[in-house]
Amino acid sequence: MSVAASGGKPVTFGALSGVAASAPDRFDAEVSPEWTIAGKPNGGYLLTMLGRAAASVSAHRHVIAASAHYLQAPEPGPVVIDTELLRGGRSASQVRARMSQDGEACVDALLTTSQLDQAVAPYWERGLPEISQVAYEDCARLVPRTPDGSRVAIMDQIEVRLEPVSSGFTTGDPSGRGELRGWLALPNGEGFDPISLLFAVDAFPPATFDIEFTGWVPTLELTVYVRAVPAPGPVRVLQRAQLIDAQRVDESCYVWDRTGRLVAHGVQLGGIRLG
Amino acid sequence: MSVAASGGKPVTFGALSGVAASAPDRFDAEVSPEWTIAGKPNGGYLLTMLGRAAASVSAHRHVIAASAHYLQAPEPGPVVIDTELLRGGRSASQVRARMSQDGEACVDALLTTSQLDQAVAPYWERGLPEISQVAYEDCARLVPRTPDGSRVAIMDQIEVRLEPVSSGFTTGDPSGRGELRGWLALPNGEGFDPISLLFAVDAFPPATFDIEFTGWVPTLELTVYVRAVPAPGPVRVLQRAQLIDAQRVDESCYVWDRTGRLVAHGVQLGGIRLG
Repeated sequence: MSVAASGGKPVTFGALSGVAASAPDRFDAEVSPEWTIAGKPNGGYLLTMLGRAAASVSAHRHVIAASAHYLQAPEPGPVVIDTELLRGGRSASQVRARMSQDGEACVDALLTTSQLDQAVAPYWERGLPEISQVAYEDCARLVPRTPDGSRVAIMDQIEVRLEPVSSGFTTGDPSGRGELRGWLALPNGEGFDPISLLFAVDAFPPATFDIEFTGWVPTLELTVYVRAVPAPGPVRVLQRAQLIDAQRVDESCYVWDRTGRLVAHGVQLGGIRLG
Repeated sequence: MSVAASGGKPVTFGALSGVAASAPDRFDAEVSPEWTIAGKPNGGYLLTMLGRAAASVSAHRHVIAASAHYLQAPEPGPVVIDTELLRGGRSASQVRARMSQDGEACVDALLTTSQLDQAVAPYWERGLPEISQVAYEDCARLVPRTPDGSRVAIMDQIEVRLEPVSSGFTTGDPSGRGELRGWLALPNGEGFDPISLLFAVDAFPPATFDIEFTGWVPTLELTVYVRAVPAPGPVRVLQRAQLIDAQRVDESCYVWDRTGRLVAHGVQLGGIRLG
């Protein structure tokens, strides 16, 4: 649980991923040491910061598509985000956002912003993977250590709960399917907003843990589409590996809100010490 | 078939998507009027040009990840590509590339370049969709008109051949599965190189035609991962829709070379007049 030193009031993810304008197109942010894996900040957490900056400089408040290329991991601490409004349209805008630290570029992203309409219902969803039915209470919370003992500080903050079918890797018995299913909750019952969904698609452990255990899998590229405003509460997640080739793996991630609506999905390419 | 006015020698896709340096980080290119859909250039074709520019300014010759956000379609004719080498690493580099026309930004992309190793074999591929077995000769070539009569000039250049199971939409009888399977060939037997695979993931008609016919589906964002150097010859393609919600659809595309190796895959978010 995140508790501010001053006064014991919990720090929200909204605040931890918040950005503060220091110029019309420049923002300051602070990468928390608690939202890290073996000391490295989570990639989706960084993209959420870029998303907040992008929404601030565009006339549209929701990010509907975000693509980030990771140059080098920043250390926990202050970072600077520079934005460029590429085009401000009527129904959508495009923004470039770059995170740097001590003058070194860390993450570069392109984002399309728009306005999600809560009144709309999905028109066709037959192409989506089947949604699980296992209840939140029937999933076990992941501990903040990998099987080889590395500390995954972020798991002390978020709740990643895995379905029994996906929990094999925690006891050295992965299923081989390359698929992790379960639930994700932010600390203190905080709900997801459309921009924090950029984090949700990168919060689960690598789906490759369900194939063969390795060190963490660093993200090279992450693309997220946000499709709807999520209902309050935890979200259901499916993280799936497709192909390991030449020491790289791609994963797809699907995020449904508590009502069973697909609210975000993403793909990422990562580096892996297999193959 | 593309035939140059001067002398009848076929123009290769390599040449049509080529870029010529006019400064160390600036390139000229020419968008062909023949690689268009209802007059608008194909998005993957434009991304291929950006890919060639990105590879030119980095020490690595292959693009392994590319993400493009489409601001506005350029007209066929001259375009300018500006590049910025974001980071040149030992095993990978990151580049930003922007296409503009008459000073207006059209496509903005981030690309990660690296070197694909032809000697490596896939380590794990169980997460991929099942590959079709229908032969090239058993697939029917798509004509350069949509069912509503719009001209799809690009289909006179490339060969898109659909499996019988995916051809229903051409006679007003879509299957409802939102899936198009078939083959793709460049003109005159030209093979794909790793950069022209950026085009291959966007060459098929919208997979939504297999659900309900609409006008063409403009690409808002396109992300491509190139996973291996393709063998010569046509490639096998699976284009699949996942979710139509709020007049947007996402599609996944898988590209296998003739030997059955997955060489590229991509996702895109498009606008659609459904829902």
